[in-house]
Amino acid sequence: MTLDVERARRETPGCAHVVHLNNAGAALPPAAVTDAVVDHLRLEARIGGYEAAAAASPAVENAYTAIARLLGCGPHEVAVIENATRAWDMAFYALRFRPGDRILTARNEYASNVIALLQVAARTGARIEVLDTDEHGQPSLVDLSRRVEGAALVAITHVPTHSGVVNPVAEIGALTRAAGVPYLLDACQSAGQLPLDVGEIGCDMLAATGRKFLRGPRGTGFLYVSERLVERLEPPFLDLHAATWTAPDEYVIRPDARRFETWETNYAGKIGLGVAVDYALGWGLPAIESRVTALAALLRERLAALPGVTVRDEGVRRCGIVTFTVDGEPAERVRDRLAAARINTSVSPITYARYDLAARGLPDLVRASVHYYNTEDELDQLCTQLRQ
Amino acid sequence: MTLDVERARRETPGCAHVVHLNNAGAALPPAAVTDAVVDHLRLEARIGGYEAAAAASPAVENAYTAIARLLGCGPHEVAVIENATRAWDMAFYALRFRPGDRILTARNEYASNVIALLQVAARTGARIEVLDTDEHGQPSLVDLSRRVEGAALVAITHVPTHSGVVNPVAEIGALTRAAGVPYLLDACQSAGQLPLDVGEIGCDMLAATGRKFLRGPRGTGFLYVSERLVERLEPPFLDLHAATWTAPDEYVIRPDARRFETWETNYAGKIGLGVAVDYALGWGLPAIESRVTALAALLRERLAALPGVTVRDEGVRRCGIVTFTVDGEPAERVRDRLAAARINTSVSPITYARYDLAARGLPDLVRASVHYYNTEDELDQLCTQLRQ
Repeated sequence: MTLDVERARRETPGCAHVVHLNNAGAALPPAAVTDAVVDHLRLEARIGGYEAAAAASPAVENAYTAIARLLGCGPHEVAVIENATRAWDMAFYALRFRPGDRILTARNEYASNVIALLQVAARTGARIEVLDTDEHGQPSLVDLSRRVEGAALVAITHVPTHSGVVNPVAEIGALTRAAGVPYLLDACQSAGQLPLDVGEIGCDMLAATGRKFLRGPRGTGFLYVSERLVERLEPPFLDLHAATWTAPDEYVIRPDARRFETWETNYAGKIGLGVAVDYALGWGLPAIESRVTALAALLRERLAALPGVTVRDEGVRRCGIVTFTVDGEPAERVRDRLAAARINTSVSPITYARYDLAARGLPDLVRASVHYYNTEDELDQLCTQLRQ
Repeated sequence: MTLDVERARRETPGCAHVVHLNNAGAALPPAAVTDAVVDHLRLEARIGGYEAAAAASPAVENAYTAIARLLGCGPHEVAVIENATRAWDMAFYALRFRPGDRILTARNEYASNVIALLQVAARTGARIEVLDTDEHGQPSLVDLSRRVEGAALVAITHVPTHSGVVNPVAEIGALTRAAGVPYLLDACQSAGQLPLDVGEIGCDMLAATGRKFLRGPRGTGFLYVSERLVERLEPPFLDLHAATWTAPDEYVIRPDARRFETWETNYAGKIGLGVAVDYALGWGLPAIESRVTALAALLRERLAALPGVTVRDEGVRRCGIVTFTVDGEPAERVRDRLAAARINTSVSPITYARYDLAARGLPDLVRASVHYYNTEDELDQLCTQLRQ
C-alpha cells in the first residue's frame, strides 16, 4: 500500500510553488481536474453552454457514478450540489421536527451545522442535545446508547474542522440503525482522505465537498440520501428539475436523490468533481489514508518536540488534520508568518467549533492539514519556520 | 447608440463556430469572462484555493459593486448565489405566510417559481392568485390594482422564458409600493438585455442569473434584497457565513444581503460574473437593448414571412426572445435540425410555462433568442434552414 509520491507531485502543478498544508481548506487539484474544468469552460465558450452540457453528458453523469463508487451506494442515491453546506442543508431542512423532538449531536460539531440546528430548534421547538465527550475527545457511545431511543435525528461530523479526531461513525451508525433513528453525517473533511462506505457506516444521509481532500474544484459538493429514505423527504426548495409541473395545481417530485438539486449548475465543476473522485479512487482510499495518517502522526511528533508548540489533537483514530498552538503567538500571526515563507496553513477560530474549543478552554488554533502528496521535507520546512 | 458588432464578435470566440440563437439559455461568453475564470482556476491550482481567493479578493468584491451598478442599488444589498433559482428561493422561502394569505403572480410565470409557490401554499395555507392577462399577453394592471391591497406578495417574472413579452414591471412596482406589498421580481431573462433599475422598478427583491444575457459563467446568479427589507428576512438556511455563532445557544445573522449566501462558493465563477457585468455595462444596457430589440423584431418579421411558421410572441414591449412553431414539425425536431446546421436554438416545453401555454392552447415552442453579437446574416441562415 505504498503510494508513488513523486508521481502524485508531478501530477500536481502547485507542488512546485507552495508547501501546501491547507488540504482541509482546499487541497491542490491534480492537473487532470483543472484541465477537465478548463476544457469544459472553453467548450462552452466555443459552442454554447447548453450545447456543451449536452455534448459532455457522459462526463457529467460520471460525477454520479464516481461518487456512488466512492460511497458504496447507487448513483440514484447521489445529488451533486454546490457545496457541502448546501448539501447538508438540503437534507437537514427537509426533516420535520415537532416541539420536544430531540436532535443529538457531538461537542465537536461544525459551526454551520450547529447554527442550522439552533435555527430549526427555535422555529420548531425541537431540542438540541450535545452528547457527552469521552476521554479521547470523541462523542461518547455510552451516552449515545442511553439517549438514542426515540431521538428525532443524530447529526454528527465524521472529522471535525478543528481537530485530528476521527469520530466513531460506524459505531454510531450501529446504534442509530438499531434504534431506527435517522442519521445525518457530515463527511466534508473525511471524503478523500478516509475510505467511506455508507453501508458500513450505517448513515442515512451524508454530505461532502469536492474542494478538500478529494482535490476537486471549489463550489462543488454532494449529498447521499439512502433509497430507504429519499421518497419520504420533501426537499426544502423545489424547482423544475426537482419536480415536474404536471397540472395547474400539481407537481410530481422526482423519485431519486436529484430532487435535492437545482436545474442550473456549474457543469464544468461537476465534470471536474467526477474526475477528482475517479482520481482518488485510482490511488485507492486505503492507500491515501495510510499515507495521510502516517504523515500527520510524524508532523504531530515533530511539532510536539518544538519548544513552545503544543499539539491540540484528540482522538483514538486520527486523520490528516493537525492542530496546534504556539506560546505567546496568536494563530493568525503564525499562519501569516508561514504564508510569507510560502507554507500554507489555516486558522480554526473558536467561532467554528464553539462547543468544543470553549469546553477545552482553547483559543484559535493553527491547522496544518497534510495530503498524500506532501513530503517529510515539507513538514521539516514547517518546523524550521516555527522554530524561528 | 449604435454598437460595434464587429468588435463584439471579435471578442467572442464562439461566433466563429456557431450561429448562437440560444442566448436565453446561456449566451456565448466574451473571451474576457472565460479568461478571468480560467486564470483564477489556474491560480487556485498553483497556490491553493483559499490562498487564491485571498489574493483575488478585489476581483471577488468587484462582483458585488458591478452588480450594484447594474441594478442601481448598494453593494450591501447584493448576494452572489449559485444560480437565479436558488437566489429567488433564498428570498421567497424566507417569507412567512399564514393560511389565507394571497400570493399574486402572472399567467406567464416560470415553472420553477410556480412549483415553489405551490409547495409553500400547500404547507402554509396561503393562496396563489393568477392575475388576469390583458389583450397583449401581459399581467393586467387593472386586475392587479383590484387585488393588490392586503396581498402577502407579488411574484412576477420580468421576461418569461417562453415568450417575447416584457412584463410591465415598473407599473406593477408602483402599485405594490402604494399598497405596501412585498414585490419579488425574477429578472433571470432580462438581466443583460434590458436596463434594470430597482428604484425605477420598485421591487423589493430581484433574482437573476449570470449565464444568460449577461454572458457570465454557468453556475452563477445573484439576489438583490432592499435594505428596507433585508434585516426582517431570516434566511431559510443559515451557515457560519450568514451568521456568527456567538454563544452556545446564540448566533447573530449578518445585517447585509450576504446573509443569503453560503460560505463556500465558486470563486472563479464569481470573478467571471463581475467581469461579465462590467463588460455589459461597458457596452451600455440601453445600447444593448436597442440592438437586441431591433434584431428580434427583424427575426419575427422574417419568420412570419415563412410558409408554415407562426411567431408566438406577445407583448407591447418585446425583447430578444423569439418563439415560434412550425406546422407539422415538433419543436424538438426543429431544434435538432437547426443544431445539425450549427444553429443553436432551444425548446420551451409546456411544462416550463403551463399556466400560459395551456391557456393559449399552444404546444412546445421553438425559441430563438438573439444577442447584440448576432448578425442579420445569422438570422438569414436560420430562415434558410427553416425553409428547407
